[in-house]
Parts: sequence; C-alpha cells; structure tokens
Amino acid sequence: MTSFFSEEKSVDAVNARMGEDIDPRLRTVMTALIRHLHDFVKEVELTEDEWSNAIAFLTKTGQMCGNERQEYILLSDVLGVSMLVDAINHRRPEGATQSTVFGPFHVENAPIRQMGECISLDGKGESCLFEGRIVDLDGTPINDARIDVWADNAEGFYDVQQPDEQPKWNNRGIFITGNDGKYAFVGSKPVSYPIPDDGPVGKMLAALGRHPFRPAHIHFMITAPGYQKLVTHTFVGGDDYLTSDTVFGVKESLVAPFDKVDNGATIWKSTFDFVLAPGA
Amino acid sequence: MTSFFSEEKSVDAVNARMGEDIDPRLRTVMTALIRHLHDFVKEVELTEDEWSNAIAFLTKTGQMCGNERQEYILLSDVLGVSMLVDAINHRRPEGATQSTVFGPFHVENAPIRQMGECISLDGKGESCLFEGRIVDLDGTPINDARIDVWADNAEGFYDVQQPDEQPKWNNRGIFITGNDGKYAFVGSKPVSYPIPDDGPVGKMLAALGRHPFRPAHIHFMITAPGYQKLVTHTFVGGDDYLTSDTVFGVKESLVAPFDKVDNGATIWKSTFDFVLAPGA
Repeated sequence: MTSFFSEEKSVDAVNARMGEDIDPRLRTVMTALIRHLHDFVKEVELTEDEWSNAIAFLTKTGQMCGNERQEYILLSDVLGVSMLVDAINHRRPEGATQSTVFGPFHVENAPIRQMGECISLDGKGESCLFEGRIVDLDGTPINDARIDVWADNAEGFYDVQQPDEQPKWNNRGIFITGNDGKYAFVGSKPVSYPIPDDGPVGKMLAALGRHPFRPAHIHFMITAPGYQKLVTHTFVGGDDYLTSDTVFGVKESLVAPFDKVDNGATIWKSTFDFVLAPGA
Repeated sequence: MTSFFSEEKSVDAVNARMGEDIDPRLRTVMTALIRHLHDFVKEVELTEDEWSNAIAFLTKTGQMCGNERQEYILLSDVLGVSMLVDAINHRRPEGATQSTVFGPFHVENAPIRQMGECISLDGKGESCLFEGRIVDLDGTPINDARIDVWADNAEGFYDVQQPDEQPKWNNRGIFITGNDGKYAFVGSKPVSYPIPDDGPVGKMLAALGRHPFRPAHIHFMITAPGYQKLVTHTFVGGDDYLTSDTVFGVKESLVAPFDKVDNGATIWKSTFDFVLAPGA
C-alpha cells in the first residue's frame, strides 16, 4: 500500500491502492485495464502533446453525445471493440446464424405487422421482398418467433435521424412466425451510408485514412422461447463496402443474395434463413 | 485489407484498415492502442453490461468537463497515467530535482513579486517562509531563474475554484532569482485536500475503495535559460496522505522539511533547493 510511484512499478503502484473489500469482478477488470493502459503508454512513449490531444479528444467525444447521438458507441464501433464484445458474448454453435453489432438506431415497440406487409412507408427506393424461415439447428421451423427489423431508407437515413422528414416507424416492424417458421415482408433495398462523421470520430477516421461507410444492410433482432436472442444484419451481396465496413460488422455468412425479380410488385428478392441456437 | 472481422484476428482486422499515407507516428500510436485495447477486452471477457457501463462512464466524464473542471485529466491522474507520461517525458540526470504532475490549477501570467513578499492574500492559515536556492548539477547558483508558484489556501481551495471568495492571484506569484540563486517568499502552510469527487471519477474512486485526497503540497514551475523546465511540487513532510496521494504525485525526494520556527513573522519555515538539469 505504501510504495511511491515510479515509471518501472507504475502498474503495481496504482493497483495496490484498491481497497480490500471491493467488488471482485471490478478488481479484475480494473487491474487488467491499468496494466494494459500503462503498457500502451510505455510502449509508444506517449508524449505530453499526444496526452493533451487524447484528453481533448475524449472530452469532445463525450460532449458530442446527446439524445440522438452517441459518439462513444461510434468510437467503440470503429475501433472494432463493439464487434469484439459481441463476439466474446455470443459464441454460437456451428451452424447457428452469427450475430453482429446492434447499432444505435433500434427503437423499442415497433408496430407488429402482418406477414407480407410493407415497412417502407415513404415509398422511396427499389422495393424488395425479404423472405425466409426461422429454424433451429436441425432445420425445424420455429413457431412464434418474433422478428424485429429496422433499416435505413433509400437515402441512407433511419427514421429517427429524420423525425420531421420520414413517416414514423418508416422501415421498421415486428413479424411473428407461425408453425411453418416462415417470414416475408416488403421493404426497400438497403443502401450503404456513412456513420455520422462530423464529430471527433469522423475526424479520427479521416486522419487514419479510413472512410466512414457501412455496406448496405438490414437489421434483425429475433427472439423465440427456448432460443438465444439473435441480433444481426443481412448484408446486400455485391456492395462496394462489404470488405471495408467502417464498424467491422460484416461476416461472410451474413451476406445475403439480392436477386432481381422485377415481377411488377417488387424489383428485388432476398431469401435468408435464420438459424437460432438453443438457450435462454 | 479485405479480411473479415473475427474474435481471433480482431486486432489485424482493425489495424489493416489504416490508409497507406497516414502520419507514421499516428499509425504507431493507434496500432499499439488497438492491440492493447483488444487484449484487455479479451483478457477480462468484457460483458455487454460492462461495455454499456463503460460507454456511459466515458460519456459522463466528457460531459462533466467545462471551463473550471477537466474530469478527463482527473481520470488520467487517478489512474496513474499523468504521472507515467510525466516520468517518460522527463527522465532527469541523477541529482536533478524530480518532476511531478502539473495539475489543473496553474494560471498563466501570475504577478511578478519581490523576493520575500507574501503570496497568501487572504491571510488565512499558518504562515510559512519558503526559501532555498536554484542551482545546477554542480551546485552553482542559477541567475535569472523564474519561479512560478501556486498553492491552495488554508481551506484546501485554489483561487480559481473560488473566484468570488478569494482575492485574485491568492497564493500565486512569480519570483526571479539574482546571482545568488536564492529565493524566499511567505505563504500559508499547505493543507491536504480532496480532488473534486462529485463526478464520475469520484464515484469510481469510491467503488475502488480509494480516498480522493492529495497530501499537502505547493506547486513550482521553474525555468532558466539553458536549463530544462522543471514542473514539480514540494510536499509537507509528515502529511497523512504522503503514501496514498490519489494522483500518485509524491516522490520521496520531493518531501520537504517544514520546521516550526514561530519567530513572530512566520510560524513555519520550509527550506528546499531545486537542482535544474541542463537542456533547452
């Protein structure tokens, strides 16, 4: 408890200060954090100017956050941390559909819609039929699965980003499967879009020579009694940004076919089956 | 450039995205940051709740910052990062006075005062004569050294924390040495005080079982042509918090004697010589 700070023993000096009776998990996490943080500073021999820039960056990132903007989640996303936390916490059995980042644009309590209904309420973009099945690891259809979907509109914005310009619940809806496990709904074919890049995270991406784009995708959150919750996207095959998603969300198994059908009612069709893993 | 993200290769996936033509130092720093950050997340297997708590903590810490409060510097201080950066950037030759943290309370352009003058303008606390010499590594007095001092008042607050209650420039001043290298001024004997602990950093310290106190000290920033700038404190010998400074600022060599003299004019005397290292 009483050693003075030195460059060599900096980690021990800080970690020895923690009290005896603190939460054991907090101790584990903070002890590791201090070790990795100090190791980083030592490895790069961080200069005082760089430290000042880091303080200013972290401050600005916090101050950019408000009701409709969470710049720290963006930061976590573009540094690959969000995907890493998702991967660690959702290791799934072989054959189950993989998860990806939740993202900041989900809204609770979207309207429950009938199978086949259209979620694109502004009518913009090229219409697309999304269809497929919710099944278990054996391929058995899952009854009563709840499929919560959300997507950007044809101009690359979610309704919550344009509350005055888009109809409420545009490109959102919840669908409940029957005994056949099938789902079907009509939306607009997703388009790629940049994450908000007018803040500190956008400046950082520019300095790192990185673009701010996400490849076109549609979000799915699927729950069913007796199965693990699945939070994922399907991505539009062939998108220019598939291999450079700025938030690292793409997994090869989540790239879906988008076939041109032009059948009058819809221009595109995307068929994708979701495989749920057993669990709570 | 085109590998998809995976838990195993998460570091490579992120670092491979950086552009070809970016600043080489930025590449070095960010490459190391990503590696240490991901290693930390993997080592502790950070849960989604912990990640959410971290996002909320970082956001609040940024939003606590304003003109008179820099919560991110406090965070850096209590995690030992500020002292580590100071140590790495100010490795000094044997015999030179050691540096310590700059802290958030320095103000530029304090009044230049005559040797012997009193800086305690509110007259509170026990008066103390601070005296000594500014010398080089050989013990030769340094002429024209500029000694910028600042301290809390007897109630533990710097003037900038109480702009309406303390006289302007209370416990601050700049002194310039003559040929003898000597300095002398009167102030109040410093007292220990807590760092501002009503924000996220204070909550974190409490959860870690740590107190928020700094041992009693007075700040010095000393510059002289041909010598390295010295930013340091002297600490009051015998203070209760000497071995548990919440920002890890104490070095044994910076603990100064405070002798009771009670000579009518002053109650205490602290004699300390500062040894400057050659340099720009």
